[in-house]
Amino acid sequence: MEENKMTVSSPFGLHLVHLDLKGAPPKVSYLAEIFPLFRTLGANGLLIEYEDMFPYEGELKPLRAEHAYSASEIKEILNLAKLHELEVIPLVQTFGHMEVYYLGEGEESKQWLQKEENSTEKLCLSHMKAVASCMVSSHPAVKPIVWDDMLRGVSEETLTESGVAQLMEPMIWDYAPDLDENDKVLLVEKYHKCGFPKLWFASAFKGATGANQSLTLIGHHLKNHLQWLKVANSTPADMLQGIALTGWQRYDHFSVLCELLPVGIPSLAVCLQALQNGGYSEKVKENVEKQLGLSSLEIDTFMSESSGTFPGSDIFTLVTQVCFYLKPSVDELLERNRYVTGWFSPYHRKRKIVHPIMMHHFQPDALSLLDKWNAVMQELQAALNRVFYMCTLEEWMEENVHPSLHKLQEVVDDLDKAIQAQS
Amino acid sequence: MEENKMTVSSPFGLHLVHLDLKGAPPKVSYLAEIFPLFRTLGANGLLIEYEDMFPYEGELKPLRAEHAYSASEIKEILNLAKLHELEVIPLVQTFGHMEVYYLGEGEESKQWLQKEENSTEKLCLSHMKAVASCMVSSHPAVKPIVWDDMLRGVSEETLTESGVAQLMEPMIWDYAPDLDENDKVLLVEKYHKCGFPKLWFASAFKGATGANQSLTLIGHHLKNHLQWLKVANSTPADMLQGIALTGWQRYDHFSVLCELLPVGIPSLAVCLQALQNGGYSEKVKENVEKQLGLSSLEIDTFMSESSGTFPGSDIFTLVTQVCFYLKPSVDELLERNRYVTGWFSPYHRKRKIVHPIMMHHFQPDALSLLDKWNAVMQELQAALNRVFYMCTLEEWMEENVHPSLHKLQEVVDDLDKAIQAQS
Repeated sequence: MEENKMTVSSPFGLHLVHLDLKGAPPKVSYLAEIFPLFRTLGANGLLIEYEDMFPYEGELKPLRAEHAYSASEIKEILNLAKLHELEVIPLVQTFGHMEVYYLGEGEESKQWLQKEENSTEKLCLSHMKAVASCMVSSHPAVKPIVWDDMLRGVSEETLTESGVAQLMEPMIWDYAPDLDENDKVLLVEKYHKCGFPKLWFASAFKGATGANQSLTLIGHHLKNHLQWLKVANSTPADMLQGIALTGWQRYDHFSVLCELLPVGIPSLAVCLQALQNGGYSEKVKENVEKQLGLSSLEIDTFMSESSGTFPGSDIFTLVTQVCFYLKPSVDELLERNRYVTGWFSPYHRKRKIVHPIMMHHFQPDALSLLDKWNAVMQELQAALNRVFYMCTLEEWMEENVHPSLHKLQEVVDDLDKAIQAQS
Repeated sequence: MEENKMTVSSPFGLHLVHLDLKGAPPKVSYLAEIFPLFRTLGANGLLIEYEDMFPYEGELKPLRAEHAYSASEIKEILNLAKLHELEVIPLVQTFGHMEVYYLGEGEESKQWLQKEENSTEKLCLSHMKAVASCMVSSHPAVKPIVWDDMLRGVSEETLTESGVAQLMEPMIWDYAPDLDENDKVLLVEKYHKCGFPKLWFASAFKGATGANQSLTLIGHHLKNHLQWLKVANSTPADMLQGIALTGWQRYDHFSVLCELLPVGIPSLAVCLQALQNGGYSEKVKENVEKQLGLSSLEIDTFMSESSGTFPGSDIFTLVTQVCFYLKPSVDELLERNRYVTGWFSPYHRKRKIVHPIMMHHFQPDALSLLDKWNAVMQELQAALNRVFYMCTLEEWMEENVHPSLHKLQEVVDDLDKAIQAQS
């Protein structure tokens, strides 16, 4: 790991931006646009969670996504990171949630657990130790980092005896705006006592407030970072390696997409700048506005009046528009427009009946709404297409646009059919 | 017209319950159950708007609805009315809204209107006069009543000169809870000056608060009646023939159904009792509770805690349940349950993908919700079937039950398909 070369007032050495590639992975051309922005905003490293975007070969090849980066693209990403002075830490799943949640339920594990001195905790620690030992023996210069979920509750005695402290560095993570700083300080002390010489913190700038969250409330994530700053100020400086600002793309491979990366950029900017300046201030606000080309930064509302000029800001603007107005405008027409609810109900639509006068009270509204949203959809598709692969575009549109847009298209089509049936 | 034989403190002679048969016409067996209740509650007449439920013959036969009453059923209805001392006034459309809205737009009318002394008002009055004269000449004992929309704005001079005052009685109608009593008193005076010896008022106990209204807010309609009581107290007693408590079933033949008659019965009861007792009081409340078998009458909320024992009270209870809870419960599951929104979205459903663990967090809820609503639907169908014809049952269910129930059924079906696809 390189020494941090940035001069910052932050208590953290490394400020890592997390790139979670298990959903909506950006094209390399977009990474080339945002890496310099990350650096300008105060990042000096990347935590790249490759997932199925890695060009695995051999027996791991089936893990590759259809649109996985090629080996040359991976090189290009690493070169871009180097160019912009961003240290890269790869994140590779060994034992994700799915395995950990069912720890000890396999047949072999059950037998092992029958011995009185054994426990699920010890089973977990022995697995961690095996993986880390294997890693260190083949790559002595590499130090594994482990997310600390399974370490927190282990007794100091068991943890010390396990010997994991000499092999790995824990990543203490908490994405809540109201995380308890005293609990975290006690946890740092515990890990210190158990022999861990170094540790990390993980915050979140997006992707941690709901599996189907589409917009990022900056203030929520800023509070999380301000709490982490407090914890850092009570942590021995030589223990703290850095902080990873996580930006989850989805909760797991089976879940929907959370906020797209461009949508989370303003939050990332505020969080990075708050870390670098030791808090949030008018200066931070102005810096972020300047760097992102925002006329006015809003941190306590989902609705941004200003669209910005940063890479992907068109996506940020269009997604905001869709999330705020698409469903409500269609629901307004279909569920609250009195001419539609009174004279063009499911009953009428099924039977192709429409009042020849009343239809004129809602047909123009329905048509202009459909035109408007079709135009927004096309603009958004073009914007998404510049940053993401087709599969992401399809997924996001199916999830967030199609349900309401189809309902709107259907009422217009049904009206045409009813008019034809009556003429 | 028979003399009113009831002893009431009301300023009105006749208290007519309006039966609007252009939507959800009740079976005669249901009328047999509610006519005695109408009488007990204080009604002494019916205003029957036959519409397409009349067994027209000859050239008018095409106007008949498929399920129109037969001639013998009409006789039975009239006999039932007589038995329960309810005077019947038939309401037959001659010139409904649709014609009146486009008055003067025909070619012949346009030519007639070219003469300087002619106007749309005069055209309307001459039509009324022609219809009324025709009626009176063939049925000298019958006095036509006319809804006063088109008379209100006509100048006293024109109205007096038209000679309609000697041929018909105006029905001054207003269904608003805040109707202006002074305006109405002035209107009564105007009709008096123009030579109308008698007139009527029309209030509403349901069907006047929105084309797709499903539940009746009693307090709203009670206020309308309390205002009419004030107007009646300032009206010369010998002018006022009575009041028609309208209960619209739909706004026009092309619109959806408003509140079903059984749903409006508690409102009708309160309004009739308020008229009979000169206002609303604890006594009125107790009378209504007693007559309807309600443990507690709620007039300022749509939600009744008590279901009652009056004819059709099962419909009242089940419709209330559906209107309050069906759509919200389905929307809650599909739009706000975090496992559904996060792990079983339109995207997953289209591709038959489901997280093998997360599905257990919403499958039981989805299944039990579906079971519950299917049971309610069957109970409601049986209850509606006792009171209404099949076409009403279909229409009400398609309008108010199927959209949400189908959405729920679809998510359960899609989950089955995804489970099958993965196994």
